[in-house]
Amino acid sequence: MVDNGHNQPTQGEVPEDANEHCPGTQSEAAGKSDACKGCPNQEVCATAPKGPDPDLVAIAERMATVKHKILVLSGKGGVGKSTFSAQLSFALAGMGLQVGLLDIDICGPSIPKMLGLEGQDIHQSSLGWSPIYLESNLGVMSVGFMLPHPDEAVIWRGPRKNGLIKQFLKDVDWGELDYLVVDAPPGTSDEHISIAQYLLATGVDGAVVVTTPQEVALADVRKEISFCRKVGIRVLGVVENMSGLRQPLAGFRFVRPGDGADVTDWAMDYIRERAPELLALEGCAEVFAASRGGALGMCRDMHVPFLGKVPLDPQLCRAAEEGRSCFEDQRCAASAPAIREIVEKLLAAGDATQ
Amino acid sequence: MVDNGHNQPTQGEVPEDANEHCPGTQSEAAGKSDACKGCPNQEVCATAPKGPDPDLVAIAERMATVKHKILVLSGKGGVGKSTFSAQLSFALAGMGLQVGLLDIDICGPSIPKMLGLEGQDIHQSSLGWSPIYLESNLGVMSVGFMLPHPDEAVIWRGPRKNGLIKQFLKDVDWGELDYLVVDAPPGTSDEHISIAQYLLATGVDGAVVVTTPQEVALADVRKEISFCRKVGIRVLGVVENMSGLRQPLAGFRFVRPGDGADVTDWAMDYIRERAPELLALEGCAEVFAASRGGALGMCRDMHVPFLGKVPLDPQLCRAAEEGRSCFEDQRCAASAPAIREIVEKLLAAGDATQ
Repeated sequence: MVDNGHNQPTQGEVPEDANEHCPGTQSEAAGKSDACKGCPNQEVCATAPKGPDPDLVAIAERMATVKHKILVLSGKGGVGKSTFSAQLSFALAGMGLQVGLLDIDICGPSIPKMLGLEGQDIHQSSLGWSPIYLESNLGVMSVGFMLPHPDEAVIWRGPRKNGLIKQFLKDVDWGELDYLVVDAPPGTSDEHISIAQYLLATGVDGAVVVTTPQEVALADVRKEISFCRKVGIRVLGVVENMSGLRQPLAGFRFVRPGDGADVTDWAMDYIRERAPELLALEGCAEVFAASRGGALGMCRDMHVPFLGKVPLDPQLCRAAEEGRSCFEDQRCAASAPAIREIVEKLLAAGDATQ
Repeated sequence: MVDNGHNQPTQGEVPEDANEHCPGTQSEAAGKSDACKGCPNQEVCATAPKGPDPDLVAIAERMATVKHKILVLSGKGGVGKSTFSAQLSFALAGMGLQVGLLDIDICGPSIPKMLGLEGQDIHQSSLGWSPIYLESNLGVMSVGFMLPHPDEAVIWRGPRKNGLIKQFLKDVDWGELDYLVVDAPPGTSDEHISIAQYLLATGVDGAVVVTTPQEVALADVRKEISFCRKVGIRVLGVVENMSGLRQPLAGFRFVRPGDGADVTDWAMDYIRERAPELLALEGCAEVFAASRGGALGMCRDMHVPFLGKVPLDPQLCRAAEEGRSCFEDQRCAASAPAIREIVEKLLAAGDATQ
């Protein structure tokens, strides 16, 4: 899918001064750039719809049957946002709640794979687009269900992405939902501005922000929290994912440093014979080491709730690869309890504010 | 920085059929959607500038002093694209080449941190914007140098991002460069369409595509390769990053599975006493396990070169956190040789095509 943006303005869009805080975008087309300066409403105004938008009415009607809406965000990609969105949806559905999972990552939709729904097609009825149902109480919508071929790139500029997100909110027949979980791509651009605009008008519980412990991820996540504040979305809390690798010692391979030869069989025999008590232990590695205080430190600094840590569990990665719930058996013993605890905190916070 | 997109078209941008292959975007504004169907030039046309653009002339003038241009892409975030871009630049500069590193990730710029250049400010001269120089032969440009506060979100829709990318190419005084390395955000949207448009007009060596071994990352990377083909950018090769954790056994911690108690001290004494030969080994874990053939299999399927694997080395993550080259000492012994080999392959491929 290709969008060449021929109908987009490019002249006059070049920022005169990329350093300025609120570039007065309202009047930018007219060549002015500081009309909003000093205006106390500039942040709100910046995300408000431009005049009455009939689509917002249609979105409000659709969303009237959805009790809770949770955005899953991150400033940085690859931190496990989609994995968390998927497992959160599995967890909520496992509690008997009616759940919808909406993937608004248009160029890199991971949700179909993470729920084991690849290759499914969207159907349309008189009521709108039907979500793909994994269970009767877990419906899923993603651009991934609309691609003629899974390798096909969605080469779309912002306005087309915004248009599809609007359609997802306006035209999908979710029915009665306890929770709508919205999985966003990384960043603070078109998708985020649009979903904030569209959802704020109908009420949104808030955002769960996912990060890894590294400062290089936290730096982007701070930007995401600052985005939430600017557009008026409550931060429900921060999840620190990939918080150290943890798995049974028997799950490791062993190599010789010089030639990289795999000596796992020898090493396991050696351990069994000489040091068998090691086999009862789990090995941990700080893969993405925090150079400062990690997510907990950031949460303290930015006064947002810390929801917990999820260890980097190869079995959780595998569950995501295979589109499985981490709660369905004991394989994700290192990560599933941590995710469940986070989901319970989220639900408790939701109850407290109702 | 907030861009409300008030001057963007939204009506008429909603895809009529998100399923169609090339939605004939040229005529979309006029309400038609299949004008390009069957046209052999539709992919090229889709990324061609709309009419003569004086900025493209200015970009061509700037780029005339740049011998090689390499794009670093990935469909998915968090695969180590910026880490690779940074270490590629360190490697090229270490060979005495004149190198520029341009970060076009506008909403999540990681390059300043990964080169240890946080907090620097861009200066302007009569020749244009001056890059920040880490060494006399390694200049860097990023929106990260333009933010009044590092936590500040860049809330920009596509056209503003495109404008800044254009300015980076048009107004930065790179001088004579052997290599310009361009680090892109994940996806196949505004930034990618724009950089392809702008660079293709002046010649670009091609793209290095970074991935992790998981199918969920490879699925997005296939989309990125399909993007490169559509817009006519050569794929120089694919790097499989985070290809299994690998570090000396002494770098691991040990915990008891039940209560999670840290028993590292006890375990290390036990190993030293009972099984000292283990200490000479490196432990490996397939953190992001490939459910299918990994990057190598994908390269075979898609007929693109495979450049090599870089293990998930906590010391490389640390070097990225601290803005250091992985080549400067022996700490990144598990990853630096792999990266160097990939860089040498890239250079050899470049020579072969000159």
